[in-house]
Parts: sequence; C-alpha cells; structure tokens
Amino acid sequence: MVVALYAGAVATADVWMPALARAFAEAGLAVDLVRPGDVPPEAVEYIVYAPSGPVTDFAPYTQAKAVLGLWAGVERVVGNPTLTQPLCRMVDEGLERGMVEWVAGQVLRAHLGLDRFIGRHTPHWEQVAPPLAPERSVVVLGLGALGAAAVWMLVTLGFRVTGWSRSPKAIEGATCLSGAEGLEAALARAEILVTILPNTPETTGLLNARTLALLPRGAVILNPGRGNLIDDEALLAALDAGQVAQATLDVFRTEPLPAEHPYWRHPRVTVSPHVAAETRPASAAKVIAENIRRGEAGEPFLNRVDRARGY
Amino acid sequence: MVVALYAGAVATADVWMPALARAFAEAGLAVDLVRPGDVPPEAVEYIVYAPSGPVTDFAPYTQAKAVLGLWAGVERVVGNPTLTQPLCRMVDEGLERGMVEWVAGQVLRAHLGLDRFIGRHTPHWEQVAPPLAPERSVVVLGLGALGAAAVWMLVTLGFRVTGWSRSPKAIEGATCLSGAEGLEAALARAEILVTILPNTPETTGLLNARTLALLPRGAVILNPGRGNLIDDEALLAALDAGQVAQATLDVFRTEPLPAEHPYWRHPRVTVSPHVAAETRPASAAKVIAENIRRGEAGEPFLNRVDRARGY
Repeated sequence: MVVALYAGAVATADVWMPALARAFAEAGLAVDLVRPGDVPPEAVEYIVYAPSGPVTDFAPYTQAKAVLGLWAGVERVVGNPTLTQPLCRMVDEGLERGMVEWVAGQVLRAHLGLDRFIGRHTPHWEQVAPPLAPERSVVVLGLGALGAAAVWMLVTLGFRVTGWSRSPKAIEGATCLSGAEGLEAALARAEILVTILPNTPETTGLLNARTLALLPRGAVILNPGRGNLIDDEALLAALDAGQVAQATLDVFRTEPLPAEHPYWRHPRVTVSPHVAAETRPASAAKVIAENIRRGEAGEPFLNRVDRARGY
Repeated sequence: MVVALYAGAVATADVWMPALARAFAEAGLAVDLVRPGDVPPEAVEYIVYAPSGPVTDFAPYTQAKAVLGLWAGVERVVGNPTLTQPLCRMVDEGLERGMVEWVAGQVLRAHLGLDRFIGRHTPHWEQVAPPLAPERSVVVLGLGALGAAAVWMLVTLGFRVTGWSRSPKAIEGATCLSGAEGLEAALARAEILVTILPNTPETTGLLNARTLALLPRGAVILNPGRGNLIDDEALLAALDAGQVAQATLDVFRTEPLPAEHPYWRHPRVTVSPHVAAETRPASAAKVIAENIRRGEAGEPFLNRVDRARGY
C-alpha cells in the first residue's frame, strides 16, 4: 500500500479526493490517500500538492519520493528551500483543452471585432467585413504544452501564426522564433499577442514599456498565462496612448483582482477571472496516478520540473 | 474572344471588374468584359450576375451560355421566369472561410460565456470555468459547402456536433441527421443552434413557435444563413419567455435592419450587420473564370443551381 498525502486546498478536498481515489483504482494502484495529520510525515511517499494547500515545509517528509503538483504553474513552490524531492507540475488534458478554447475564442473575438456588436442596442448598420484569418498575424509567446496546443489550433483556424520560446522549437504551419532577437521580431508583427509563458525571473515584466513599444500600433493583448508577465503600469500607459488597443487579462499579480485596480474600470481592458485554464479533477487525477505508477515502477516521472529553469 | 457581361452592382464594379480581368488573364482566357449597353444583349455569352445589379430580364440574352452568380444565395433570381439559361451560384473560398470564422467565433463566445466579461467595468470576480467543448452540444442546420465547413471546424474545436440536412449526408466526427424526424431530434439537443440553410419555400420560417419549443431551454441561436429562416415574432416571444437565452443574427428579412425593429433593442439579441460571409472578389473571380473555361470546353459548370430544389 502506497501512502499519498492530499495537500491541495482544503476547500476543494471533497472534489479532489474522490477523483484521485477513482483514478488510483482505475490504474490498479493500491494507494492509501491521507490528509495532513492522518499519518506521521515520514510515512508519506507522495505529496499531492497545491500552493493553496496546507504544506509549506517539505523537510519533515523525509521518505517522500515526489511532490506531484495539481497546478500547471510552479512559481510559488519551485524556490522553496525545504523542497528537496522531485517536483512534477500538472499537464492536464482538460486544462490544455480549456486553454485552447479560451485562446481560440478570444483571438476570434478580437479578429472579428465582436465587441462592436455585443451589448449594442442602438441601431447602427455598418457592413464592413473583417479581414480573413490568413491576413491576420497572431503571435504566441511561450511554446510549452499549452502554448503549442494554442498555436496548433490558431494555425488550423487559418491565422498567420508566429510562436516564440526561449529555446528554438518547430511547429508545423507556424513560424517559430526564439531568443532575445526573436522576441523583438515576434513583437513587431503581433497584431494579436497571446502570452502563455511560465512565471520565472526572466519572464517577470516581459511586457514592459520597452517591449510594448515594439508592437504594431493598435495591437491586442491576451494574457491567459501569468499576471507577472506584465508590467501593469506600462500596459495601462500603452492603452491610454493607443499603442495597445485592447487587453483581455485572465491572470493578475494579485487574485482576485482588487476592486480598486484600474484594470476594472479601463474601457479597453476586459477582466476575465482566471477561467482560461482550470485543472479538471477527472483528467488531472489520472496524471497523478500515472506518476505514482511510474515512481513505484522506477520509471522517470512525467512533467518533472527543472529547478534551475524554474518550470 | 468570349463576351462576358458584368451585371453585378454598379457601385462595386470598380472592385469586381479588375478582379475578374485578373482572374481571366491568370486562367489564360481571352474575355471581353463589358458593361450593360456596351454590346447588344444577343452578343453576350456569359452574364456575371448579382441581384443588386441592373439585369432583371434575361430574355434578350438569347446567346448566353450561363448566368454566373456572384452571390451564394440565389433566392432572388431562381424564380425569375425569364431565366432559361443555366444558373450557377457562388461557392467562394473566401466566403466559406469568412463563414467558418464567424461561426467558430460566435460559438466560442456563447460556449465560453464571454458576454459576462465584455464591457463589464464593475469589479466582479466569479471564478467559474465553463464546461469543455466535448460537453457542449452544437447543432448546425444546413450541410452545404458552408455548413459542412463550419461543422468540420466545430468538430476540430472539440464540440459535440450534430449536422442536419434535408437529404442524408455524412461528415467525419459529427452526427448527421436528415428529414423531418431528424430535424426534431437535432433541435432537441441544440444547446447552440447554427442555421446555415438556403432560403427556399421549405426553409422559410423553419424556426417558428413550434420548432423553437423543441430546443432545450436556454438555447443560443446563431443565424448567419438567411433572414427568412426565422419567424421573428416567434423568436422574440421565445427570448422573452427564456426558452431562447440569446440570439445573434447576421441576416434579416429586411436589410439594413430597420431602426425601429425590436431586435435592435432586445437585451439578449446581438445584431451583426450581415458580415458573416461576404464574397471576396479575388477568390470569387477565380470561380467565375473557371466556369467560363468549363463552358468553353464543354465541361459541366461548377455550382450549378437545381431550379426545382431552389439551390
């Protein structure tokens, strides 16, 4: 019997613990899924972890073989000095699918100019068709699992897509750029810019006064990635100057976004309350089960975090 | 030298005539493209036609081998008793692409519930993720070139898609229904209903009090097809009763939609000013050129209208 500790948010334990139990049973794994305090820390072999859960000190878990994250982002745990165990982040099919749907929907909203029609109840008939997708340049920053899936769907929708990542990648149908020079070239062609980067020291404030100025005038920014990617003051200034025409933000440096934050009131900002990519218990629990199976079989873990890179 | 008459709208001749000339040249066709009055009617071999153009009587064009429509819809010409020549409608790649983009964007808007966020500038953080596309049932009425292309994209986006057409069809990844019974079954499962049917006597008023009542409560209706498909009074009643949660309409019985029409003011109707599918001169002109080539080579025309069916 393998002992696994549920160390996700207490509030969602009622959703996660049955989903995990089902996934363990389906995978044929004999797992004793416990809560903090049920067993001594040194009895725990796997920690199913979320930053919103109760565990902040990993030192007592001397026998833990891995910390299995329920979140895609690991910035709140990767620098924890007590964490010596292998750390795996969540790469969940449901989360990826949700991200792709959000990005496709928001890119099409911007591309088709849907805001001109939504909520308009004064007669106004202006029959101007938007350009077609092959005439629209969309740039995706970040080509991890989520970014690559978003690029693939945007290519399928017919857009002219450029992807950018720190190290070189290739995706069929898209132009892929990398490195610092590639970033400048990518920004310069981004009529619609989608940021799906992890939150690392290098990506913090990646969109700032200097980089926002590289965008074509009137660009649209979509951020379903991480709040820290954006220098909020610089974005507000770029919106006010017309350099950025519109921003739809799903993630923020502080969540929930404080009521007094200027994003709420800005006429060209759409606040989306962190719904782009939510981990779905049923599919995510299968990923946790698979990693426990791998750990027990001595196979390498899925989605193991490179602590030096930070993701 | 083949003589072709430009009988589209006078206002758009400056766009169409150069596009047609370019397409003829690219196809290696020697065509004398004339305007009404330039040559006697009996000299005309092909009529490039739009209902918004000057020709209403086809009888004088005794030598015309075909009437080549610039519009996808033929309801304003198919019943013209003076029309004895073969009639071809426009199936334009640009038009099809535009339709697919509009349908994908509007379905994702409804699916993701984007209207909750667009234009909201009072703080409200409600982190409820929408269901994923495989949990959402979308129904497309009409499986012609445009409907089939829309179905394919919705399937690729992951939706659970049902297509309906008068006669049986098959599209990979979608459930296809047909006939009167199939229509009732399709409507009963339509969380999001997309109507891309041609305008014929059978489709006029297809969405009426009886058929709207077959939808699941709270359905969303998207009509990029034809205004006549909908009984407007019945739709307004269904919206007021909550049977239909939202309607986004791109086409109307009278266009531009009159300023006094209740659709403009209804809080759950979005008026889109006939922008879903617009013929694009560059790609459409190639279709006209190909049909003239076929006519001269004695090959069957593309997209020839079956006058009995009406499309």
